[in-house]
Amino acid sequence: MWVQKEISLKPRPRGFHIVTDEIVRQLPELAQYSIGMLHVFIKHTSASLTINENADPTVRMDFESFFNRAVPENEPYYAHTLEGSDDMPAHIKSSMLGSSVTIPVTKGQLNLGMWQGIYLCEHRNHASGREIVITLQGD
Amino acid sequence: MWVQKEISLKPRPRGFHIVTDEIVRQLPELAQYSIGMLHVFIKHTSASLTINENADPTVRMDFESFFNRAVPENEPYYAHTLEGSDDMPAHIKSSMLGSSVTIPVTKGQLNLGMWQGIYLCEHRNHASGREIVITLQGD
Amino acid sequence: MWVQKEISLKPRPRGFHIVTDEIVRQLPELAQYSIGMLHVFIKHTSASLTINENADPTVRMDFESFFNRAVPENEPYYAHTLEGSDDMPAHIKSSMLGSSVTIPVTKGQLNLGMWQGIYLCEHRNHASGREIVITLQGD
Repeated sequence: MWVQKEISLKPRPRGFHIVTDEIVRQLPELAQYSIGMLHVFIKHTSASLTINENADPTVRMDFESFFNRAVPENEPYYAHTLEGSDDMPAHIKSSMLGSSVTIPVTKGQLNLGMWQGIYLCEHRNHASGREIVITLQGD
Repeated sequence: MWVQKEISLKPRPRGFHIVTDEIVRQLPELAQYSIGMLHVFIKHTSASLTINENADPTVRMDFESFFNRAVPENEPYYAHTLEGSDDMPAHIKSSMLGSSVTIPVTKGQLNLGMWQGIYLCEHRNHASGREIVITLQGD
Repeated sequence: MWVQKEISLKPRPRGFHIVTDEIVRQLPELAQYSIGMLHVFIKHTSASLTINENADPTVRMDFESFFNRAVPENEPYYAHTLEGSDDMPAHIKSSMLGSSVTIPVTKGQLNLGMWQGIYLCEHRNHASGREIVITLQGD
């Protein structure tokens, strides 16, 4: 049993954002799966997806602060600079965090831990909505 | 053919630990799959899973040393500090390393390279056992 | 419908390399899948796979520059030094970037974004070809 959809996440400011509900809302088929797997894939190289803490907003603020320090803009050795100072760091952050998450499905629901949510990691200053492909499979 | 189990990995000290055998031991069904995929997912945001070198224990020691320097505790800019100085770095490390690993299954076995093992990356000082969901599918 | 192949990527110098075509060329079965998933797994712990920008070669140069600074060689605290100064950093980079990528398959093709490609991240100075396992499933 396979379901695949291409959906657009609404535009968000640079930073880390919980998108679990925005995704699950568009996937009513989930209820029919007793065992399975959900794959969420982002079709961009300057934004990424990860799973992390879904409660305290300061965690997402600290993610943004940390990754801006770990992957600074305007490093003198960057050669890829034409698309703006936020572009090359965005590519690097995207590969450090990853283009997809895969989540087990159990009894019609995502089998996430109590404190887990899906983050859209928006690394550009001025991004449009982000295209994702969600693929659900199972029994 | 789908098998899914929720199991608890025994508590371990902060650091990087090989858990391949602890997982495979609880998955005798593996022997019946000629082609497939194993997905291992950790239901926590302060521990993670990765695949790395399964032989020399100094590799895991150096992982711990490196990630403690790359993601320091007590950074003055951290806003999420209430749960202890090891908590916010644990969240960041968890997203850098990832919440799941996916491994090909071939002729009844995990098709890992000779030097590969599954690491539980324990980022908290005092953690309980960690819940994981293992999902096996294939033919 | 499952297809699994073990293939060898040709040897490449240390750095980041686009290997999308080298992989797809060996997977003519892709054309028969209307919905599915491709999993690409590298059987090594000193090289990795990621998805990033497929156009401007300076992006891959900057990846190499960045990760060499983020994960330096010859750190005085490394204990795992016997296999050369590039070895321990290679293990760490491999876990930061990941051992596998999973890509949705749609209408007989990889459903990548326009600017996305698969990178082989070669972290050793003198590596042989790299073994990967590609697993394709779907309908």
